[in-house]
Amino acid sequence: MDFINVRMNDILNTGNSELDQMLSYLLSEPGKMLRPRLVFLASSLYPSDQNVVQDGAVALELIHLASLVHDDVVDGSLLRRGRASVYHRWGSKASVLLGDYLFATAFRLINQHNIPDILDTVTRTIQIMCSGEINQLSSSFEVDLLLSDYLDRIYRKTACLFECCCRVGALASNMPAQQRDDLQRYGVSMGMAYQIIDDVLDFLSTPEYLGKPSGSDLLEGNITLPVIYGLQDEYYGGELAALLTQPALLAAQLDQIKELLQQCGAFAKSMQLAESYLADARSSLGVLPEPGRQSLNSLSYALSSDYFNKMAPSYSRES
Amino acid sequence: MDFINVRMNDILNTGNSELDQMLSYLLSEPGKMLRPRLVFLASSLYPSDQNVVQDGAVALELIHLASLVHDDVVDGSLLRRGRASVYHRWGSKASVLLGDYLFATAFRLINQHNIPDILDTVTRTIQIMCSGEINQLSSSFEVDLLLSDYLDRIYRKTACLFECCCRVGALASNMPAQQRDDLQRYGVSMGMAYQIIDDVLDFLSTPEYLGKPSGSDLLEGNITLPVIYGLQDEYYGGELAALLTQPALLAAQLDQIKELLQQCGAFAKSMQLAESYLADARSSLGVLPEPGRQSLNSLSYALSSDYFNKMAPSYSRES
Repeated sequence: MDFINVRMNDILNTGNSELDQMLSYLLSEPGKMLRPRLVFLASSLYPSDQNVVQDGAVALELIHLASLVHDDVVDGSLLRRGRASVYHRWGSKASVLLGDYLFATAFRLINQHNIPDILDTVTRTIQIMCSGEINQLSSSFEVDLLLSDYLDRIYRKTACLFECCCRVGALASNMPAQQRDDLQRYGVSMGMAYQIIDDVLDFLSTPEYLGKPSGSDLLEGNITLPVIYGLQDEYYGGELAALLTQPALLAAQLDQIKELLQQCGAFAKSMQLAESYLADARSSLGVLPEPGRQSLNSLSYALSSDYFNKMAPSYSRES
Repeated sequence: MDFINVRMNDILNTGNSELDQMLSYLLSEPGKMLRPRLVFLASSLYPSDQNVVQDGAVALELIHLASLVHDDVVDGSLLRRGRASVYHRWGSKASVLLGDYLFATAFRLINQHNIPDILDTVTRTIQIMCSGEINQLSSSFEVDLLLSDYLDRIYRKTACLFECCCRVGALASNMPAQQRDDLQRYGVSMGMAYQIIDDVLDFLSTPEYLGKPSGSDLLEGNITLPVIYGLQDEYYGGELAALLTQPALLAAQLDQIKELLQQCGAFAKSMQLAESYLADARSSLGVLPEPGRQSLNSLSYALSSDYFNKMAPSYSRES
C-alpha cells in the first residue's frame, strides 16, 4: 500500500504552507490502509481500470482521514495513532477546515473518472455516517442501549464505509451486478466484525497498540457491545449498572468493570458475534472467482488474528 | 426563489429526527438566495436543462449553508441571521456533522446529472475556500495586512463561490466557452464588490440588518478594507494603529474607531473600490445576449442600492 501514500502525498501538496504542514503531519503516520486494501481486493476479481481503482482507493482513505479529523473535534480526542491529534495540535477551527478540504479533494479525485455510480455511493455513505453520528451525540452513557441500536450504530460508523469500498472496487471493474451485491455483503460483515473487535480491544489491549489509554470508549460515554452483554447478565448486570450510574467515578472503577465483564463472559460473547460476522463475510464470497476470492477470505482471518496479537498479555493468558 | 426553498426542504427531509430538527431550523430563515439567483441568471442566456439548473442552484445554496455552519464553529459566532447560530444552539459537534451532511448532499445532488465539469468546479472552489480560511486563522489582528492580501482573502471567502455559481449556470446551458469566461469574470467582480460592501456595512449598518452587533469583524480580529485604508492615511493612520494595538479595549473604542475611519474617508474609498468592481462586472457582460444580460446588469445595481438601504440612518445622512 506504499504507493497509496505516495499518491496521497502527491495530491496533497497544495503549496499553502499552513495547510501542507497539517497534511504532512497527518500522512506521516499512515494507518492500516484497510479501506484502500478493500478497494483493491474488490477490484481484483474481474478486469478493472487501474487508474480508477487507484484513485478510488486514495479517495476512500482521504474520506476516512477527513472523518477521523472531524471525529476528533466531535469527541474532543487529544490522541490519535499514538500521538497528538490534529485537533489537539492545531485546534478545532483548523481541523474543521482541514476535514472539509480532504472531503472536497476526495470527491474531486473520484469525479475525474466520470463514473457517477462511484460518487453516488461515496456521498450516500457519508450521509449515512453523519446522520448516525448526530444520533449518537445525544446518547452518551445510554445504559439501556439495545443490541439492535448498537448494531445500527456500528453499521453507520464503520461497516457502511467498508461496504462502500467494496462497491467502489467492484464498480471500477466489470463485475456482474449480482456478484457486486455479494461483495458488498462481504464488506458489511467485515466492517461489523472489525468494529466489534475494535470495541473489545478498547478494553483489552494496551495503550501502545491503541494509541490511547485503554477503556477510552467507556470513559467518553460510548456504550459498546461488551457493556451491553455485561448489563444483560443476570448475575453481574446489576452490579455493572450501579457502577455506570456515576460517570465521574468511572476512571477509578475501570479495572473493576473490566474484571466484571471478563467474569460474565462479555468479551468472549462479543468475540463470538464478531466471529459470526467473519463467517458471514466468508460465505458471501461463495461464487466469486479465484485468486481474488482467496485474498478476501484471508483478510477475514487476518482480522481475528489481529485481535489476538493486540490483546494485552494478561488477558491473552486467560482466553 | 421560493421553489429553491421548497426543493431544499424536500431534499433535506431525512427521517432522522435530530438531523431534521437542525435542518428545518436552518431552512426556516432563508437568506438572500444570491448564489442560486446567480446560477439561474447565468443559465438564462442560452437554452439550458432546467433540471440541472435547479439542482445546481440548490446544491450551491447547500454548500453556502454548509460553509456558514462550519464558519460559525471556526469563528465561534453565536449569532447568524439575527438569531442563535446552529453552533450556539446545538454546539460544535453537531455543527461539524451537519455541515458534512450538507456538503455530501450537495455533491450527491450535482452528481445525479452527470456533468463532471460542474462537480469539478464546485469541489475546486471548496478547496480554494478552505485553504484561504486556514491561512486566515493565523492572521488575527494582522494590522500590516496588505491590500493585495485582503483582495486575495475576499476572493477565496466569497468571490470564488460567486464565480462558481456563474460557471455552473453556464455549464448547465449551451453557452460558448468564451462567453462562459466573461460570465465567470462577472461573478468574480460581483463577489469582490459584495464582500467589500459587506465589510463596510459591518461598521455602518444596524444590528437589525446585520443580525449581529455592528463592528463584529474588527472585534473578532478580522482586518477589513476600511481599516486597511484607515491605517494608510497619513494623518489618522498612526492614531488608528495605536487603538488597534490593544484588542481587549476595542469594544470600548469602537465608536472612536468608526469616527476616525469616517473622517479619513476610509468608508468612501472602500465603496469606490466596490463600485469599480461593479463597473467591471457590467463591462464583462459586453456581448452576452439579452434579456439575460439586462438582468445580470440590474443585479449589479441592486448590490449598491442594498448598501444604501442597509446603512444606519446616522451615516446615510452624512454620505
